[in-house]
Amino acid sequence: MRIAIDIMGGDKAPQEIIAGGLQAAKRFASDQMIFVGRPEAIEPIGKLPDNVSFVEAKDVMAMDESVTNIMRKKESSIWIATKMVKEGQADAVVSAGSTAAQMAAATLQLGRIKGINRPAIGTVFPTVKGGRIMLDVGANADCEPEMLLQFALMGNVYAQLILGVASPRIALLSNGTEAHKGNKLTLAAYQMIEQTSLNFIGNKEGRDLLSGDIDVIVCDGFSGNIALKSIEGAFGALMKMLKAGLTKSVGRKIGAAMVMPAFKELKQMVDYEEYGGAPLLGVQGVSVVCHGSSSGKAINNAVAVAVNCLKNDFVSRLTTAVADEKQQ
Amino acid sequence: MRIAIDIMGGDKAPQEIIAGGLQAAKRFASDQMIFVGRPEAIEPIGKLPDNVSFVEAKDVMAMDESVTNIMRKKESSIWIATKMVKEGQADAVVSAGSTAAQMAAATLQLGRIKGINRPAIGTVFPTVKGGRIMLDVGANADCEPEMLLQFALMGNVYAQLILGVASPRIALLSNGTEAHKGNKLTLAAYQMIEQTSLNFIGNKEGRDLLSGDIDVIVCDGFSGNIALKSIEGAFGALMKMLKAGLTKSVGRKIGAAMVMPAFKELKQMVDYEEYGGAPLLGVQGVSVVCHGSSSGKAINNAVAVAVNCLKNDFVSRLTTAVADEKQQ
Repeated sequence: MRIAIDIMGGDKAPQEIIAGGLQAAKRFASDQMIFVGRPEAIEPIGKLPDNVSFVEAKDVMAMDESVTNIMRKKESSIWIATKMVKEGQADAVVSAGSTAAQMAAATLQLGRIKGINRPAIGTVFPTVKGGRIMLDVGANADCEPEMLLQFALMGNVYAQLILGVASPRIALLSNGTEAHKGNKLTLAAYQMIEQTSLNFIGNKEGRDLLSGDIDVIVCDGFSGNIALKSIEGAFGALMKMLKAGLTKSVGRKIGAAMVMPAFKELKQMVDYEEYGGAPLLGVQGVSVVCHGSSSGKAINNAVAVAVNCLKNDFVSRLTTAVADEKQQ
Repeated sequence: MRIAIDIMGGDKAPQEIIAGGLQAAKRFASDQMIFVGRPEAIEPIGKLPDNVSFVEAKDVMAMDESVTNIMRKKESSIWIATKMVKEGQADAVVSAGSTAAQMAAATLQLGRIKGINRPAIGTVFPTVKGGRIMLDVGANADCEPEMLLQFALMGNVYAQLILGVASPRIALLSNGTEAHKGNKLTLAAYQMIEQTSLNFIGNKEGRDLLSGDIDVIVCDGFSGNIALKSIEGAFGALMKMLKAGLTKSVGRKIGAAMVMPAFKELKQMVDYEEYGGAPLLGVQGVSVVCHGSSSGKAINNAVAVAVNCLKNDFVSRLTTAVADEKQQ
């Protein structure tokens, strides 16, 4: 496999992205990593390992840059990395850069899967029982009910092939668990998803997300973004408050030192970087989106996701699943 | 003040509601508590304190009962308690029962404030810097932009009068902080709120909610519900994982015992019951909504919120604020 890595994208680019790419090159010694970016970014490394090559991209799409600029930035690292997939010079892209730019580059160059109105961004997030997927988490702030149906179909394939769940439990994110709870969008989507052969477990609430009892959480990109970031903020605030409390006295500090391994374990359990990233769902190619703040570890794991998608024929399985549902 | 307490509403009704009402009767010795419910509920208490009276309600609106039933349940505790406010036999209602039923009883009997399309439910929630208010959190799953503007106006008055913030910082809950981020609803509401004299600090994300740097968070009831419940779920999951880690070995157990006070402090900091409840915003009367799982402590604090609203002339201040904005 040939994985094009956008070394210019991300808050910690290029250093951490390159570090992660080099880790991945060791881990996947029989695969090829292609670093795409500015020459000066890789200069400090010196000689690249045998299975790492470099492709120059003169430009960069900044993290908060308007996505419309991409049409004028065809020398940007994300555009070129995606173009390589389109032209058969690479098999997949990995980027921690602007998600909107990555989505635009993929949609415009690789195209959408037939039957998918709008591609979605999925996020694999940690729960008490392992990683689960939520989609959409940002690409589509306003959705139509049939889009949520498509998200359910795509999330199902993802959970089967990448998370290894035989019969993924699919739920709609709503403001109550009863079937009559929801807004106009989710109420209509509920009816549609219920009629499929999916293992649909109905409406679930924000408080159920981390239970691990839902494999695929379906939502519009606005709600999904709010749910994920609320969880992230809650973790942060809680740890901050706890830390302040644990350093208040000598006795507490000693006790805190004794329980430190438990905190470290916890930190690892809730570490998004373990999951690396998730592919854009609904485009005709593998383009793995990483969190903007990804460090090397996340990039390394994101390459693993890309390899996994390729080995499992993810895109064609997705295409078949969507086509099958359309026929029913 | 005369506070009508719906002793039949809530997961822990009637015992905990009565316990909280009795605590409030002691705390507000010069005010009157009116317990509204079934006679058998108060029987175990024996003689009621001098400032507590009882009014019979034969019926109850169950927690998950369809709100449309309320028209056939005019003997229910929430209907009767609200009716007492309407007819001048009480000054405020407190209930931990079905929020939808409480909202319906208030809207139908007390009526809306002029200029308010739909009343909202606000929730005061704990942050690292104290309680802040979010609205709407459940009454209106689908909103129009002008409703969010009204929520902002009402939240502003609430934060000034009840939370004691001179110039409340008002934010829109969105999927990004930039002004161009959002869905159709929030993008339109942004334009409207920006044109008011409110201290509008723009879009904020889920991860900002617990910072304490936003006094009033404005959102539709669907998103607000998802944000709050996601935070609740994150706290629960984190504490569960931490607890499992802290009991894994004898050393950790000893350490955990030493840091227990820090955990207890934390638990108190994130305790929703400290805030009791929040009044329905936009109805012509004071009807304080408590969490369904409220214990006595929450009810006691909710009575304090009701007293505070009455002392501060909350409803008329709200009416004036909305009317003033309309004229501009």
